[in-house]
Amino acid sequence: MAKNITPRATDYSKWYTDVVIQAKMADYSPVKGSMVIRPNGYAIWELIQKYLDLMFKDTGHVNAYFPLLIPESFMKKEAEHVEGFAPECAVVTHGGGQELEESLYIRPTSETIIWSMYKKWIMSYRDLPILINQWANVMRWEMRTRLFLRTSEFLWQEGHTAHATAEEAEEETLKMLNVYKTFAEEYLAIPVIAGRKSESEKFAGAVHTYSIEAMMQDKKALQAGTSHNLGQNFARAFDVQFQNKEGGRQYVYATSWGVSTRLIGALIMTHSDDNGLVLPPKLAQRPVVIVPIYRKDEEKTKVMAYADALYRELSEKHKVIFDDREQYKPGYKFAEWELQGIPLRIEIGPRDVENNKVVLVRRDTMKKDFVDRQAIAAVVDETLPRMQVEMLERARAFQKANTHKVESFDALKDIISGDGGFVSAHWCGDAACETRVKEATKATIRNIPFDRDEEKGACVCCGKPSEGRVIFSKAY
Amino acid sequence: MAKNITPRATDYSKWYTDVVIQAKMADYSPVKGSMVIRPNGYAIWELIQKYLDLMFKDTGHVNAYFPLLIPESFMKKEAEHVEGFAPECAVVTHGGGQELEESLYIRPTSETIIWSMYKKWIMSYRDLPILINQWANVMRWEMRTRLFLRTSEFLWQEGHTAHATAEEAEEETLKMLNVYKTFAEEYLAIPVIAGRKSESEKFAGAVHTYSIEAMMQDKKALQAGTSHNLGQNFARAFDVQFQNKEGGRQYVYATSWGVSTRLIGALIMTHSDDNGLVLPPKLAQRPVVIVPIYRKDEEKTKVMAYADALYRELSEKHKVIFDDREQYKPGYKFAEWELQGIPLRIEIGPRDVENNKVVLVRRDTMKKDFVDRQAIAAVVDETLPRMQVEMLERARAFQKANTHKVESFDALKDIISGDGGFVSAHWCGDAACETRVKEATKATIRNIPFDRDEEKGACVCCGKPSEGRVIFSKAY
Repeated sequence: MAKNITPRATDYSKWYTDVVIQAKMADYSPVKGSMVIRPNGYAIWELIQKYLDLMFKDTGHVNAYFPLLIPESFMKKEAEHVEGFAPECAVVTHGGGQELEESLYIRPTSETIIWSMYKKWIMSYRDLPILINQWANVMRWEMRTRLFLRTSEFLWQEGHTAHATAEEAEEETLKMLNVYKTFAEEYLAIPVIAGRKSESEKFAGAVHTYSIEAMMQDKKALQAGTSHNLGQNFARAFDVQFQNKEGGRQYVYATSWGVSTRLIGALIMTHSDDNGLVLPPKLAQRPVVIVPIYRKDEEKTKVMAYADALYRELSEKHKVIFDDREQYKPGYKFAEWELQGIPLRIEIGPRDVENNKVVLVRRDTMKKDFVDRQAIAAVVDETLPRMQVEMLERARAFQKANTHKVESFDALKDIISGDGGFVSAHWCGDAACETRVKEATKATIRNIPFDRDEEKGACVCCGKPSEGRVIFSKAY
Repeated sequence: MAKNITPRATDYSKWYTDVVIQAKMADYSPVKGSMVIRPNGYAIWELIQKYLDLMFKDTGHVNAYFPLLIPESFMKKEAEHVEGFAPECAVVTHGGGQELEESLYIRPTSETIIWSMYKKWIMSYRDLPILINQWANVMRWEMRTRLFLRTSEFLWQEGHTAHATAEEAEEETLKMLNVYKTFAEEYLAIPVIAGRKSESEKFAGAVHTYSIEAMMQDKKALQAGTSHNLGQNFARAFDVQFQNKEGGRQYVYATSWGVSTRLIGALIMTHSDDNGLVLPPKLAQRPVVIVPIYRKDEEKTKVMAYADALYRELSEKHKVIFDDREQYKPGYKFAEWELQGIPLRIEIGPRDVENNKVVLVRRDTMKKDFVDRQAIAAVVDETLPRMQVEMLERARAFQKANTHKVESFDALKDIISGDGGFVSAHWCGDAACETRVKEATKATIRNIPFDRDEEKGACVCCGKPSEGRVIFSKAY
């Protein structure tokens, strides 16, 4: 257990903040509600950007950049949208020393400014589809900061696409949710449940919202990504019509989809432990650290030569840290790299040199192995991808073990108020039942899973017929 | 000459805007002073980011992210800084439906917010140096938009480093200016003059500012990047002291340096022509386009098979566009790819198939060559890097031809008011002479070049002794 980190069992919420602060991933800023993403945290965001951007481009998307400031009148053009977002906006009233004629909102999301441009760019079916993504900062006012999870300003990507038909828009919406699911599972090693949001939980201005939901170690849910089918709502609000192949005019169909720096919070709360961060290998900029151990000068010479040769060998394939700092002892270095979540640690002491061995420690299991010097490169090559897979499997087993099918309101309440977890229960589709559960337990419907069993039943709340089970859980 | 593009000779300024708009690089946004960077423009920014980020990391820097909003009181802590920036700030006065107790400024640059954090992070010499860079949007209020060149919001990177000694800070400042020079010349193919800014042109809050200055086709200068030695000014303003090795306490030394989306404007104005954008190969996401030409169906079969085989062959090494769109004629396609600046175009018609040839057209020279089918892959491999070098050489020759040594105020005035260009002239170092030139000609001292000759002389303005020549020019 690391110094300065509250154990999870003592206070999960404090543990989380301790890991973020001690691992130098983020810090509180002097502006209430805002955070600073420090280099150790930003390095993870860079990898998230890199992998996701490749996946976006592979699915035909291009990047662009739209203005930060949105005229108040634009926000008001889509009725549900302004109702959902205006109360949490930051408002610019002065610019260049003058009071502005019209207030400008710092974007909480960019549908309105983007659709005002799409009106200029879309004339005919030949201009469709538009498949644009934007990497940007957005702002939704918050007073209570939770680093990475809830901050006024955060970084994200927002895809905004325009289509000629409803079918194409729905296909895009689902395609991008699937990109998020693949990314969460194959890169972040976070298993997620993909499904549709209930009416009351959908995006302000959407026809449908789909989400991926992950389970954190405290068994609460975290919405890790959303994809919205916006129908023709924004096209109507901004009067974006196109001439179709038959010569008629019709409104354009829209989607939007996004993930944010929140994913870093999800990553921490899925895998990390009382010693600090645990990173899946694909999210570690430098997945291996070598720590030499010696006391006497003659030991030093031998150990350093042996370690340096290994460093060169491994560096051909991997980004490796060679921690040859003289001012720190090995124990201090071990704790520091554990705190920062480096997947593999190689320790080399005088005895290892004599025996032609190294010590290999896996960050996720903390298991220590003696490995032959000749074999270590192959073992590293093989361990990193295996560790990636095993971390996903472990998280999936945890999610399964803490997902409970229940048949009654009391049973649902017992689980949510007790040990927590996901509750899979029948629901009639009525918002009143959703509200009743929320008021009694603070749990919400996370989503209606795509892969739920074909199983009719009775609503856990009112007993009316249900078409299938949904996931209830408390959430971040 | 392309449709919808005003020739340079007719109106250079209108030509520039036409190229940007017609090539779909950017568009005006509904918010005065702001622009939208469209996918064709953003693709260039992505490459700028990719290459520069590698260079920053190779020189030991890491990325981080600091808040967009800066408390008014922070801006006021460094006297020159607030005087320089406050008048052009956008101000947030309301958030989350409430009036704020303290107004927040949208960052015009991030020295103040970053140094408020460095105060938390820097205790001892062990915490130094800090070598952080940030990729971000910033805002400096503008009413008259010039796409990429002058907009309220723009994208940039800002490096902010902290050092234990004045020497180290100066070394960093110069090192990063040199990174910019290398990048401008080797990637953008823009030759630049590196030097020190005069006192009156330096950054608000800096001890010294260094810049790289480029010459546009209209012979005006464009400042393409700056690097500032901030001395201890911000450390004093935010009380950032550290314990040195001897146990004493002292203020930290700072640097900051940045380039922005303005570079895209510089790129356009250095290389492009009356047909549209001309991109140096390294800045083209897809440097080659293949356009098949046919009329009859039997021609189509042959041409398409031949073109497709070539597309596959070239795609092994390069990103290639295969323009097989049926709804457009070859002439339309040629004009479109010329407009968008694709470096190499390969045309394939029925006669080329018969003769086992292709037609290769270089975008920069518009020179057409018949190349053997067997040789084309090697010719492409060889032409792209040669074109990159030749574009730099051509721009350098232009800059040299339009840089004039003058010995009198009248001669300076004649050149600036006449054909324009860079004027290399002696200057005594007095701000009054600088002002007199500016008032008479609108030209400013661009910088004091590092590589100027050791040559004493008499100030072109007042006749007093001068230590060497400086560059005067009108500037963007």
